[in-house]
Amino acid sequence: MPSAATGTNSTFNTLKLSKDRLINTIHETAKWGAKGVWGPNPTDTGVCRLALSDLDKQVRDWFVEECKNLGCTIKIDQVGNIFAIYPGKNDGLPTGIGSHLDTQPSGGRYDGILGVLSGLEVLRTFKDNNYVPNYPIALVNWTNEEGARFPVSMVASGVWSENIPLETCLNTMSIDKVPVSFGDELKTIGYDGAVPCSYKENPLYSHFEIHIEQGPILEHENKKIGVVVGGQAFEWNLITVTGRASHAGSTPMDTRSDALYTASKIIQLAIETAKKYDGLATVGTLELEPKSVNVIPNIVKFSLDVRHFEDDKVAIIMKEIKEQAEHICQININSKKAKPLSVNFDNLVNSKAVKFHPNNIATVKKAALELFKPEEIREIVSGAGHDSCYCNTRIPTSMIFIPSKDGLSHTPEEYSSPEEVDNGFKVLLNTIILYDEARLQGSV
Amino acid sequence: MPSAATGTNSTFNTLKLSKDRLINTIHETAKWGAKGVWGPNPTDTGVCRLALSDLDKQVRDWFVEECKNLGCTIKIDQVGNIFAIYPGKNDGLPTGIGSHLDTQPSGGRYDGILGVLSGLEVLRTFKDNNYVPNYPIALVNWTNEEGARFPVSMVASGVWSENIPLETCLNTMSIDKVPVSFGDELKTIGYDGAVPCSYKENPLYSHFEIHIEQGPILEHENKKIGVVVGGQAFEWNLITVTGRASHAGSTPMDTRSDALYTASKIIQLAIETAKKYDGLATVGTLELEPKSVNVIPNIVKFSLDVRHFEDDKVAIIMKEIKEQAEHICQININSKKAKPLSVNFDNLVNSKAVKFHPNNIATVKKAALELFKPEEIREIVSGAGHDSCYCNTRIPTSMIFIPSKDGLSHTPEEYSSPEEVDNGFKVLLNTIILYDEARLQGSV
Repeated sequence: MPSAATGTNSTFNTLKLSKDRLINTIHETAKWGAKGVWGPNPTDTGVCRLALSDLDKQVRDWFVEECKNLGCTIKIDQVGNIFAIYPGKNDGLPTGIGSHLDTQPSGGRYDGILGVLSGLEVLRTFKDNNYVPNYPIALVNWTNEEGARFPVSMVASGVWSENIPLETCLNTMSIDKVPVSFGDELKTIGYDGAVPCSYKENPLYSHFEIHIEQGPILEHENKKIGVVVGGQAFEWNLITVTGRASHAGSTPMDTRSDALYTASKIIQLAIETAKKYDGLATVGTLELEPKSVNVIPNIVKFSLDVRHFEDDKVAIIMKEIKEQAEHICQININSKKAKPLSVNFDNLVNSKAVKFHPNNIATVKKAALELFKPEEIREIVSGAGHDSCYCNTRIPTSMIFIPSKDGLSHTPEEYSSPEEVDNGFKVLLNTIILYDEARLQGSV
Repeated sequence: MPSAATGTNSTFNTLKLSKDRLINTIHETAKWGAKGVWGPNPTDTGVCRLALSDLDKQVRDWFVEECKNLGCTIKIDQVGNIFAIYPGKNDGLPTGIGSHLDTQPSGGRYDGILGVLSGLEVLRTFKDNNYVPNYPIALVNWTNEEGARFPVSMVASGVWSENIPLETCLNTMSIDKVPVSFGDELKTIGYDGAVPCSYKENPLYSHFEIHIEQGPILEHENKKIGVVVGGQAFEWNLITVTGRASHAGSTPMDTRSDALYTASKIIQLAIETAKKYDGLATVGTLELEPKSVNVIPNIVKFSLDVRHFEDDKVAIIMKEIKEQAEHICQININSKKAKPLSVNFDNLVNSKAVKFHPNNIATVKKAALELFKPEEIREIVSGAGHDSCYCNTRIPTSMIFIPSKDGLSHTPEEYSSPEEVDNGFKVLLNTIILYDEARLQGSV
C-alpha cells in the first residue's frame, strides 16, 4: 500500500486490487513488437509497434476482446480510434481514459501503453469488485499518436477534436519504403470503423490520461506522481538548405556551396539558440541529395522541433534561428568565390502551450493526496505532446505522470519500476472514482 | 583547326576528321539515362545511368555493336569490363584508351562518357581513313567507375590491376532499396564475361584516358588542355557517432547526448581542418537513427572524403580530425549532467597520391604542343580518382583533361563546350598516334 496517505477515499478503500496484474499485462502484451534488448531479463527490451501495422492489429484485437469480456461495448471510429464503453448506473456521456498502443520504431514498453493498460486495469478492478460507476467509462485507444509511421502525431485525436480534417488523416502517407496511405492501411487491418470521428457525434464528458513523464524531473526531485497542469508550446519545421552539387575531389574549398556544411552550422545554431532561451530544439530527421561519398550535397532537408513553456518564446527562438540561418547561407565558407546558399523553412506544426482544465487537475491532485504525502507529488508541465492536448481543446482534460528512469523515452531502455506503475494506476483509479462521484454531485 | 599549333605530326595531318560526330554521339547516347533538365535546349540535361542497370546494358550493347562494326574484337571480362580491340599491323599488347559509361545518380553528359566516346572517335577516324596503327588499340569501358550504385569506386579497374580481389567486387551489394550483388546484376544484364579480369592474363601495353577536369582550374586560367601528371591522395572513412535517443519534448538540453548535434560539429570541424591544410573534405552521405521528428538521434553515420596532393597531409588532416572529434564527443553540450558520446572512424579507402608515367605524360604534352600554343596547355593534378589511377599501378598511364564549366561535375549542369570536346579529342588522337609510333621506334 502507498505510504502515509494524507486521507483516503472511502470507495477506493473498498476495492480489492489485483497485485501485479497491470505490470504483467504490460510485459505480456509487449510480445507484439518486442525489440531492442538492453538487459539480461526477458522483459528488458523495447517495443516497435508502428501504427496500423500487423502488430498494431494484433494488440488491438486482443484489447477489443479483453474489453468485451469485461462487458464493454466497442465503438470503432473512422480513423480507427477504439472506444470501449464500460456501462454506468446512469445514462450520460462517458468519462474518458485514453492513451495509445502504437510506439516509435525504437520505442519502449511504457509510452502510451501504460495509459491504455492502466485504464484497462481500472475496468478490470471495477469488474472484479462488481463496482458500477455512476456514469459510463470510455477507455480509448487513440490511433497513431506517435506520428512515427504516418508523420502527423496525435492525428486521430486531432480529427476527433476537429482540429485536423478527416481527409488529411486518411490521406497521410506512411514513411515506409513503399509508402501507403493511412486510410488504406486502416482498411487492411480492419479498423476502418463506421462511427463518426468527432467529439460532437461521439462525445466524451471528460478525458484523463496517465503517462510516463519522458523526462527526468520527477526522478531527480524524488517525486512519485506528477499532476500535469499543461503542455509546452512547440513548432515543427522542415528546413531545406540548397547549395550546389559538385565533385568532392576537384572542387576547391573556396568555391563550394556545400549544403551539408551549411546545414550542420544551422543545426548547431538552432540547438544553441533554443538552449539560450531555456527552450528545447531537436533535429530528428535529415535527408540529403545526391547521397554519394564523393559528391558535395546540393540539398539537405531536416526537421526542427522547437519547444518552450511559453508561446512567445517559441516565436522568439524561431525568429532568431531564421535570421541567423539566412546569414549563415550568405557567408557560406567565407570566400568571395563561393556562391551563397538558400534556406527555406516549411512550417509543419504549430502548437500553442496547453492549460489543462482546473476541475480535472484538482481531481487528480485530490486523488494523489489521498494516497501519497504532499512532498511526493508535484505539479508538472508536459514536455511532450499527447492526445490529451487535443482532447483539452474540446472537453475538460488532464494527465497524471509517473517517473521515467533517467528521463528516457522513445528508446528501448525506457523504464518505470513496477512500484511506480502501481502508484500511477492507484492515482488513476482514485481519480476516476472521485471524478465519477463529483459528476453525480454536479461539481464537475 | 586548332589555333597556331607549334608543330605538327605528319600522320595526324594526313587524317580527315569528322566534324561534330563525337559531340553528336555524346548527345545521342545520353538518351540512355537523360535526366535533370537545366536549360532550354534538348541537350541541356544530365544523365543518370547507374552501373549494371538496364540503361547501362543498353549503352553497352550499343557500344559493343559500334566497335564490332569498326572491326574490333570484343572481350568481356569477369567484372564486365569491355575491351574492344582494334587490330594493328603488328602483334603486341594493345595500347589502351579507357574510361567509363556509368554515371552518378545526378550525373552529367561528360564524366567518363567523354573518355569512352573520344576513344571510339579515334577508332572511327582510323577506320574512315583506312589507317592501321602499328599495334592494336584496346578501347576499354571500365565497369562501375563511379561507385555510386555499388559503393566501391573504380572497382573494376581495381580488380584488373589486382588491387581489389575479384570476390570483393562480385559480392559488393548495391545501395538500392532492395540491395543486389554486383555479381548477380552483372549476370542479369549479360555482361558476366569469361575473360580473366587481370592485367596479367588480359594485359595492356599502356593506358590513356581523356576526361573533363571536374574542377575550375583550366577554365579560370583560360587553358585548353590539362596534361595530367598525377592524382591527389585521398582517404574515405565511415564515421559513426553514438549518443542516446530520447524524447524531444521532455529531455532537458543539458542532459542530452544528441548524436546529430555532435555529428554536425564534427562535420564542420572536418571541413575546416582540411581547408586549413589546403586539402579537401566532403561529407556526401549521412544516415541517422531512429529518424523521427520528436526523437533525439542516437546514431549518426556519415562518410568523410579527405584529399590532398601530398600523402602525408592527408594523414595529418585525418589525425587532427580524429583527435578533435574525440574531444567534441567528450565535451558534448558543455553540461556535467550530459553523458559523453562516442565516435568511430571506419576506414573504407586509402589511396596514395598518384604519379603518372613520364613517357605517357611526355607523349600527351608533345601531342598537345603540336596542336596548341604552350600558354594554352598546363600540367595539372587530378582531384578525382580515375580508373587510370589503378591502371598506373601496373602499366604506364596518363590522362588528358579538358575544362569543366564552373568546375562542375556529378551534377546535370556539368558542361564542356563542343570546341573543348573537339580540342581534347584531337590531343587524344595525336597522343595515340605518337605513342604508337614511339612504340615501333622502341622509345616507349
